[in-house]
Amino acid sequence: MIAPFGTRLDSVFGSKGHLCVGVDPHPYLLTEWGLTVDAAGVRSFGLAVVEAVAASEWVGIVKPQVAFFEAYGSAGFAALEDVLAAARDAGLLVIGDAKRGDIGSTNDGYAAAWLTPGSPLEIDALTVTAFTGVGALGGLFDRAEAAGKGVFVLSATSNPESRGLQTARTAGASGVSVSRLVADEVAERNTDRTRLGDFGLVLGATKRLDDYGFAAEALRTLSTTPVLAPGFGFQGAEFPVIPHVFGPLAPNTVVSVSRSILQHGAAGLAAAIAADADALAEVIA
Amino acid sequence: MIAPFGTRLDSVFGSKGHLCVGVDPHPYLLTEWGLTVDAAGVRSFGLAVVEAVAASEWVGIVKPQVAFFEAYGSAGFAALEDVLAAARDAGLLVIGDAKRGDIGSTNDGYAAAWLTPGSPLEIDALTVTAFTGVGALGGLFDRAEAAGKGVFVLSATSNPESRGLQTARTAGASGVSVSRLVADEVAERNTDRTRLGDFGLVLGATKRLDDYGFAAEALRTLSTTPVLAPGFGFQGAEFPVIPHVFGPLAPNTVVSVSRSILQHGAAGLAAAIAADADALAEVIA
Repeated sequence: MIAPFGTRLDSVFGSKGHLCVGVDPHPYLLTEWGLTVDAAGVRSFGLAVVEAVAASEWVGIVKPQVAFFEAYGSAGFAALEDVLAAARDAGLLVIGDAKRGDIGSTNDGYAAAWLTPGSPLEIDALTVTAFTGVGALGGLFDRAEAAGKGVFVLSATSNPESRGLQTARTAGASGVSVSRLVADEVAERNTDRTRLGDFGLVLGATKRLDDYGFAAEALRTLSTTPVLAPGFGFQGAEFPVIPHVFGPLAPNTVVSVSRSILQHGAAGLAAAIAADADALAEVIA
Repeated sequence: MIAPFGTRLDSVFGSKGHLCVGVDPHPYLLTEWGLTVDAAGVRSFGLAVVEAVAASEWVGIVKPQVAFFEAYGSAGFAALEDVLAAARDAGLLVIGDAKRGDIGSTNDGYAAAWLTPGSPLEIDALTVTAFTGVGALGGLFDRAEAAGKGVFVLSATSNPESRGLQTARTAGASGVSVSRLVADEVAERNTDRTRLGDFGLVLGATKRLDDYGFAAEALRTLSTTPVLAPGFGFQGAEFPVIPHVFGPLAPNTVVSVSRSILQHGAAGLAAAIAADADALAEVIA
């Protein structure tokens, strides 16, 4: 019986730290790396990143960006399957950044694909979108939990265009922001409050979370909820902001860095990863 | 040069009508059809549906549900590619129901996959989610438009759990619902108001749209916006509600039916499609 995702994530935090390396084979990076812009290129790119992370003593999490594999159709997914297999074999925790999400039984298809032991696209946790309401994801959450998998739900995203929608307030005197509504409903799923939960939030590090409806007190009520934090490096956030942005959630944070590491090319990956891991360890013990 | 998606959709409405048959190979349907629950099963299922629709004089649109192919990983996507190729060869308009959506350049990957002429997963229009704000989809919209493709953005979804999030109101005196915010921002992209637009909305037929912030006047301002309307049949809506639910948008509506047709099995598809097409023609000329 595999341990719950939250427990496994906490264990990686303790043994390897909070850094997560994105596997984002943008076409321009493939070209910069001297790779072909096709399925073979994204396979080589992904395997090189996994190899560099696996060789690092201080990183235990990778986050493939599925869109950059999907761009090449079934051949791209076959490449992703090889990359995921290499990551599993290396004992890395894998967060699939696919932003999936639909209603009802349609989500069963996504759960079968990503959160099912033995499936070719098996990962440890999946990013999902809850535009349809967190309640629509219940079946997917159930399947994840049963398999020891995790889910990260978009709550306050790192992009500049997110504000209007995500700060809209729900009806009634106790209205909260959309970001907070999602966060509270996800946090409710983490019923065992004695450990890090299996259901987490994507919270952009480029934001002031109180602008998105998270007062300091709100963050405390989420205290066992894991956080996936993109927005570092290329998108502008720097590690020292982590305690200020995430407050009591800082110890739960997966700190995701992609292009600012990947731009160093295959030969420069190891040094770039080590530098970021060192810098991050100064901020989150 | 291919005609714009909206023009092509309007042409199908005129020649074939508004019915869209979902290609939703739920595992239980595969079993009921006597097919294997694997990539070969979804391929056979999808090809059979495409063949039945192509043989019908009164249906010109299919909507594969990507999750049910994705469930089988790269092999499932290879099956989907075969189904999409068959649909293209049959001259059908294909709406890929994938609910994709991310920020910035990540969306380029999804556009490359689905909305690029010659790509193995090429379709005519893609369903997307705008939790990150419609503005984050700008690049995807641009790429769709340049290729004569369309996009349907989730606005008011057919599931019961959607209400809290989608009825939240944006800040300020002129606050609108999340559903309406998305709708207005999508409609703004349809700059040529003399024809049906390329950018549409997913509006569930199971809803009272005024509950989601669409007063009758709001629907009139969307008058050149296409609508993808799920929720018929299995989810409970019936065709005669269309004029009441969609008002001035009824003539723009893609009426999507899946399980209530698919449950008839391969042998019963043609009759089920004909019956629904007849019934729908009574409602939308």
